[in-house]
Amino acid sequence: VINVSIIGLGLIGGSLGLALRESPINVVVSGWDRDPGAIVGALTSGAIERPAITLAEAVAEADVVVVATPVMVVQSILPAIAPYLKAGAVVTDVASTKAQLMAWAEEALPSNVSLIGGHPMAGSEQHGIYHARANLFHNAVYCLTPHEQATPEALALLEKLVVAIGARPLLMPAATHDAYVAAVSHLPFLLSIALTQLTATDDQWSIMSMVAATGYRDLTRLASGDPVMHRDICLTNAEAIRPWLHNMADFLSRLAEQLDDPEALQALFDSAKQHRNEWLRNRDNRDGLAPLPPIAVEHALDVTNGPEC
Amino acid sequence: VINVSIIGLGLIGGSLGLALRESPINVVVSGWDRDPGAIVGALTSGAIERPAITLAEAVAEADVVVVATPVMVVQSILPAIAPYLKAGAVVTDVASTKAQLMAWAEEALPSNVSLIGGHPMAGSEQHGIYHARANLFHNAVYCLTPHEQATPEALALLEKLVVAIGARPLLMPAATHDAYVAAVSHLPFLLSIALTQLTATDDQWSIMSMVAATGYRDLTRLASGDPVMHRDICLTNAEAIRPWLHNMADFLSRLAEQLDDPEALQALFDSAKQHRNEWLRNRDNRDGLAPLPPIAVEHALDVTNGPEC
Repeated sequence: VINVSIIGLGLIGGSLGLALRESPINVVVSGWDRDPGAIVGALTSGAIERPAITLAEAVAEADVVVVATPVMVVQSILPAIAPYLKAGAVVTDVASTKAQLMAWAEEALPSNVSLIGGHPMAGSEQHGIYHARANLFHNAVYCLTPHEQATPEALALLEKLVVAIGARPLLMPAATHDAYVAAVSHLPFLLSIALTQLTATDDQWSIMSMVAATGYRDLTRLASGDPVMHRDICLTNAEAIRPWLHNMADFLSRLAEQLDDPEALQALFDSAKQHRNEWLRNRDNRDGLAPLPPIAVEHALDVTNGPEC
Repeated sequence: VINVSIIGLGLIGGSLGLALRESPINVVVSGWDRDPGAIVGALTSGAIERPAITLAEAVAEADVVVVATPVMVVQSILPAIAPYLKAGAVVTDVASTKAQLMAWAEEALPSNVSLIGGHPMAGSEQHGIYHARANLFHNAVYCLTPHEQATPEALALLEKLVVAIGARPLLMPAATHDAYVAAVSHLPFLLSIALTQLTATDDQWSIMSMVAATGYRDLTRLASGDPVMHRDICLTNAEAIRPWLHNMADFLSRLAEQLDDPEALQALFDSAKQHRNEWLRNRDNRDGLAPLPPIAVEHALDVTNGPEC
């Protein structure tokens, strides 16, 4: 039996617990949250079977510890659990940015545990244990950013759990992860927020808002996400996000000068449509395939040490 | 019985036919398309009951003519149907931009018909008669931009049809319409296209694309829309769209310099979330309410004449 301890029982932590307990793997899932209501919710829904009153109790027996709190909270959780971790335990997390977290963890954790950052590419603008569901990770890519001192056995164990919840492990260095999500995850939510803010603070908004339809609804969806999570993502990944915002600003300024140019517009719109449809096709084709191959995992050795992390 | 003629049997024209024929109003729907396959599709699905071989035949008996072709095609349809229109007929369209179209129509149409621009705020990135459905307009706002010479009876008739298909008429001047949709409809699709193009042409895209998840999918959805429609929207509404692109570029550039500022980020993200959720609430509250009131319709007198149209 594998003892898994989930610290932080929100949407992701709760869904992990549900998915693990529904999987064919023999696990015992314990859980802790600073909010006792979340612990009760997780017990009631079956996301965990063993509630823990203290962090020490939560991790003492754990083979795998998943810190599933907001990223800024992970920073304080790590030193608090460090003294109680079992030798050889796997410590992972689910935060949206990885390099900063790997640096914090390296400093806080003893060297006899295996640190492997984690980021399931699944979520929702909803949050909290009551939105947790076992199929949240189904077919989602699950990024893993192993520290150089993580053992191969630890990595194999974590990959096994990731596959068991229906997700697809993708190994990469923490800095690489952060550069990618800046483009495909953080830039999108910032665009969503910017669109909402720009339009909704316009002095014509009260009437303009009635004309807004499904396109507006979808493009602004991410603005309904958790402001604290979005803030912390920006704070821990500012260097990677900033150039994408500037690139986007330049792109839009150039586009503004092409609005009378039928050929340029058509070429751009054709190209974007083709790219988007190709991405969708590849995404659909992933369903039911084998786990994704490791990506440049050898570089993982460097990424937690440099000043850029 | 009201004779309605639909010129252009794609997603919108076909859905209009289906919705009108399912409504309690006593209508006979004829239809024409330059593609005979679309006429067959519309007959088969029940979107029209009387196919027309020529434009003359399509409009000769019509009390209401709906030109539901792409906006650039409307420009050539209008002079082609003008000689055959019944005196007193209502002529409307469904194009996404209105001022340019009203100017074309004013020039092309005889003075004994009532010109009322139309724009249902409903659609899909899919197109063609085979995606048409009767409930496409359910609860959608349907903008109407009446020309100064449109009769009150003509406007009442068109409003009756709009209500019959489950939509909510909203009267406004054409230039006002175009300013609003630039912000809540055209800016969103341009952001969607820009995000797709910027990320998918990055040299890391082949791996980065695997990390892209539901947020990316939703924010890029509009890039899968019809490139020709998007191009023509830009060409006919460039003046209204351009400042929004520049405002967005400025907004993103400023945001890039605030990524280390927790208070500024939190305030922005809280504000956007609040605005977005309020918009969603108001939108949900519209369901089942009475038709929306006219907006500044008295200004409609001016908007088709000025050089800005």
